[in-house]
Amino acid sequence: MQIFKTTKNMQTFIQNYKIKNPTHKIGLVPTMGALHNGHLSLIRQSVESCELTIVSIFVNPTQFGKNEDFNKYPRKEEADINLCKSLNAVVFMPTIDEMYPYKDDMQIKLKAPQSLSNTLEGKARAGHFDGVVQVVLKLFNIVTPHRAFFGKKDAQQLLIIKQMIEDLFLPIEIVESQIIRDENGLALSSRNAYLNDDEKNEALKISKSLREASKAIINGETNSKKIKEIATKVLEGLEIEYFEIVNKKLETIKTIEKNNTIILVVVRINGVRLLDNLWL
Amino acid sequence: MQIFKTTKNMQTFIQNYKIKNPTHKIGLVPTMGALHNGHLSLIRQSVESCELTIVSIFVNPTQFGKNEDFNKYPRKEEADINLCKSLNAVVFMPTIDEMYPYKDDMQIKLKAPQSLSNTLEGKARAGHFDGVVQVVLKLFNIVTPHRAFFGKKDAQQLLIIKQMIEDLFLPIEIVESQIIRDENGLALSSRNAYLNDDEKNEALKISKSLREASKAIINGETNSKKIKEIATKVLEGLEIEYFEIVNKKLETIKTIEKNNTIILVVVRINGVRLLDNLWL
Repeated sequence: MQIFKTTKNMQTFIQNYKIKNPTHKIGLVPTMGALHNGHLSLIRQSVESCELTIVSIFVNPTQFGKNEDFNKYPRKEEADINLCKSLNAVVFMPTIDEMYPYKDDMQIKLKAPQSLSNTLEGKARAGHFDGVVQVVLKLFNIVTPHRAFFGKKDAQQLLIIKQMIEDLFLPIEIVESQIIRDENGLALSSRNAYLNDDEKNEALKISKSLREASKAIINGETNSKKIKEIATKVLEGLEIEYFEIVNKKLETIKTIEKNNTIILVVVRINGVRLLDNLWL
Repeated sequence: MQIFKTTKNMQTFIQNYKIKNPTHKIGLVPTMGALHNGHLSLIRQSVESCELTIVSIFVNPTQFGKNEDFNKYPRKEEADINLCKSLNAVVFMPTIDEMYPYKDDMQIKLKAPQSLSNTLEGKARAGHFDGVVQVVLKLFNIVTPHRAFFGKKDAQQLLIIKQMIEDLFLPIEIVESQIIRDENGLALSSRNAYLNDDEKNEALKISKSLREASKAIINGETNSKKIKEIATKVLEGLEIEYFEIVNKKLETIKTIEKNNTIILVVVRINGVRLLDNLWL
């Protein structure tokens, strides 16, 4: 198992690998570390479907707002490396200076597609998705993967990256992966580490609200407003940042559309933002 | 010789080519068509150093300002195709809809590095370099070349693209090519087609002014102000848009630096902007 800490070494390795193995598929799993079973599920999918898997571990400063949790974001480098090793994945773990070698006025800036990024998370976190597409494009260019693996939990991020792939003609296949939950239903997130036991217990209401929405839909309800009423009842007592029912263009929809509906919820518990969602 | 008119066919061809020829080099010569000897020189360099050469021919709307010459920009598709054929280069000639399949608010927008793009051409042509990096990045992603060939005539464009390569970690080598001139010294440009004989004659003053600057420097002059005085005397009677002596960061310099000086001149003749420059 190899670890690369510089962009140059990573790129040289990939270039040599491609010349030696022209038909092999390379999979990339971009992460910010603090790996949990959600990440491991992505890594396993890559290892199973690609001859070479690169896991990038990089807490990207440009996708954090000024008052966000960049500094306290959980970092578990040694444990992360061991997990990747056990799954037979190569680790790319660059420093900030490696990923951003130029000062601000010498950088290419990217703007995520307006219609996908001015809403929901993008509204709550100004500039967040511009930082996401910037770092993901850099990672794509360094690793030049055939496939890249993203979780559906960051639904808006996934849709924006798919749009970037299409718009910029990147020759990369995006593999979307189901949300992984703990035994109580809580969607896994590195930020769950911020929660104590009581808060974790409260947080279970989030997935429960989505299950209630799901039940209502299975029972034939298609009206977004009614589904929202049913689901948000479960969230009583929590600080709901948003609960939205949208299509894959992230437009609010009044009626559920099969294969084209996402129910997104963001709740704050003691200052910690927790996301969950349901794809129909 | 092959011509590709869709991004999909171009990408499929490249992907298959790479699998079959993993050690071959692919060269890209991005052009807006109306090919002249300057372009042919770039194509020849690519054909000589790469097993496969792609010439893209695409008049990119996003790098033209509202009141610029997008509509009347010279187009010579058939002649261009024949020239590429004679040089054994593959042609990629997409439509605007192929290159920009999404409406504005679903596009990834790029901003060229501020410090390189807020000056000179970027000052005269707001948004020009944002359009250039957008289309060049798309072309790079479609063709995934090992090498891309650019002329030094568009000096600022060349420096910005090199910076994009570095900042975004694109695994592409940029080959810079000398300015090609006609027998009288006029730098070749597709826009020379706008000039009548009298205007072409007037335009010779531009390269002459750079030769005067060069002479002064060979004779030991290093003071930018004095060099500018000597050179711009030759331009008397012409509408000088700018005459600047800068380093490779495009910062104005007071004293010539060896291997780090570019003298740039832009003149308007009857509304036609003509660029020329000298790299020291």
